Amino acid sequence: MPCGTFRAAGAGIDHNSAPSSKAREPPMPDSNLLDEIKKAADRLKATAVTTPLLESALVNDRVGGRLIVKAECLQHTGSFKFRGAFNRLSLIPAADRDRGVVAYSSGNHAQGVAAAARLLGIAATIVMPASAPDIKKARTRAFGARVVEYDPERESREVIGAAIAAESGATLVRPYDDPGVIAGQGTVGLEIAADLADRGIVPDQLLCPCGGGGLIAGVSTALLDTFADCAVYSAEPDGFDDTARSLEAGRRVSNSAVQGSICDAIVTPEPGEITFPINRRNLAAGLTAGDDEVLHAMRIAFEDFKIVAEPGGAVALAAALAGRLPLENRCTVVVCSGGNVDASLFARCLR
Amino acid sequence: MPCGTFRAAGAGIDHNSAPSSKAREPPMPDSNLLDEIKKAADRLKATAVTTPLLESALVNDRVGGRLIVKAECLQHTGSFKFRGAFNRLSLIPAADRDRGVVAYSSGNHAQGVAAAARLLGIAATIVMPASAPDIKKARTRAFGARVVEYDPERESREVIGAAIAAESGATLVRPYDDPGVIAGQGTVGLEIAADLADRGIVPDQLLCPCGGGGLIAGVSTALLDTFADCAVYSAEPDGFDDTARSLEAGRRVSNSAVQGSICDAIVTPEPGEITFPINRRNLAAGLTAGDDEVLHAMRIAFEDFKIVAEPGGAVALAAALAGRLPLENRCTVVVCSGGNVDASLFARCLR
Repeated sequence: MPCGTFRAAGAGIDHNSAPSSKAREPPMPDSNLLDEIKKAADRLKATAVTTPLLESALVNDRVGGRLIVKAECLQHTGSFKFRGAFNRLSLIPAADRDRGVVAYSSGNHAQGVAAAARLLGIAATIVMPASAPDIKKARTRAFGARVVEYDPERESREVIGAAIAAESGATLVRPYDDPGVIAGQGTVGLEIAADLADRGIVPDQLLCPCGGGGLIAGVSTALLDTFADCAVYSAEPDGFDDTARSLEAGRRVSNSAVQGSICDAIVTPEPGEITFPINRRNLAAGLTAGDDEVLHAMRIAFEDFKIVAEPGGAVALAAALAGRLPLENRCTVVVCSGGNVDASLFARCLR
Repeated sequence: MPCGTFRAAGAGIDHNSAPSSKAREPPMPDSNLLDEIKKAADRLKATAVTTPLLESALVNDRVGGRLIVKAECLQHTGSFKFRGAFNRLSLIPAADRDRGVVAYSSGNHAQGVAAAARLLGIAATIVMPASAPDIKKARTRAFGARVVEYDPERESREVIGAAIAAESGATLVRPYDDPGVIAGQGTVGLEIAADLADRGIVPDQLLCPCGGGGLIAGVSTALLDTFADCAVYSAEPDGFDDTARSLEAGRRVSNSAVQGSICDAIVTPEPGEITFPINRRNLAAGLTAGDDEVLHAMRIAFEDFKIVAEPGGAVALAAALAGRLPLENRCTVVVCSGGNVDASLFARCLR
């Protein structure tokens, strides 16, 4: 009974029954990006948390398969963003570091850049929407960064960020459309692949939250290098599924709104310019989950895995538990990418 | 600024300023127990979660030192009890396994034994107080164990457990007074010591939740073997501090009540017969924390470490954060031993 044990190997399955928006080309990891991810892992080795893979025998019973959670919410600053930020900032030439860095973010990238900047002794300015959760703004400041607030309905964070960069000479650290950032996030995938291989587990499918697509671009590149047959799916909130629709269309399409989801951390206008070609090559399709499904996944993360997941971080678990893919007799890996959630919102998932 | 970084080494400090209930003899790990802990680690290697050490730069800032949390709530079944149970059950001779195992527990040992028994194909009967949290009873049953409820005010779980063992020939698995159980729990300490040594961190002090004393007996034995100068403290709920008072008295003394704490998982009548001599040798003193301090620690675990801590699991973190020991310029390790908490109780720490 493989599903009843903690360590049974995933059953070999036929991927033809899984939904796929296109006849998938054989996934071909970008060898240059793969090299950069491995270099990023070396840079992060002494600094980042090697986050655990968690599994619950009782959840496995319920889904009739193996569900493995990569608990990346346990990373420094409460999300994977620390990895990309630290790697990117490490690449800034010594001569440029004195002029600082600037970033724009709804919160997790902000904290990641602020914490990495502090560790590397670089001054950071973060452009954040005034509507971002208080906890994210407070923590960004606590890491020593200067926070500049803006109104996302009327102002452009890109314009504000570029203006600060132009004026101060600071290096702009983009949240996902940057090879150094993508390489840092890819170390999540390297860890997953190494941990699974160590235990003799072959994953059938992996689901990963997706905003601009930096995390899943890096994760899929690293994972497919070891497990070429694993199907990788992005997960997004209902109504903010630009990546799912872009994969379907074969070109980048936009969301009609950038506000209104509880998954604030992963809502972006459209897939990244750099990330989308990688994701188009690596991903099987895009999945979505609704707010109630996300809250349910946060509750399962609390109850069965003992981790704190924020809505955007739980959306892949939500898509898996909501049955967007068959889980029975399969080994499914789900990335839980962040845990920065206000107490009042978290309380909703406990009711 | 060692406290502001994630990786700075703990400052060497003078332990004379720390509270100590007695002129401490040099800690002397029991070499036989140490051997058993190492054997247990081999048995658990392919099965247990190697739980991470977590650290928050912002918490370090607030306490002015380094506070490192061993997130053992991420263990299978949501607590360290899985380790001791799996190790103890592995030691049952093949000829005796068919007759099953019996255990009594307020919940975490119950789940640990039930899950370990299932993995090893052994039938389990668990004697649980009718007042134990619903989630713990439901989960014990979900692991396939038979649950026998009793009234802790009128009945003795030891008598019920012994009667079932006598009748069925089942092996009784005690929650702490059993060398095989203590050895399993001690693997938590081996992991802490190995992780710290890997990173070049020398701990000044370690705080660990304490009920019957099995976890801290094993942890202190393993830890002191590598870090002989580390001061180890037990943490208990206010009013249920039998270990603290026993360490003070130099002999085992009892609690006046066994109900009434939110830390239900670690309330025991008195220190164990086997565990107390070990703890008397290894521990610097016993600390306590009140209910509000425990709820605050659960909130910090949620907010800063992104883990779910149950009250009994958070009591060491609570004692640390409440200032029972100086944390400034020290490296303090805190064991968070469990995360099995009902949603309604958890909601209290979010208010």
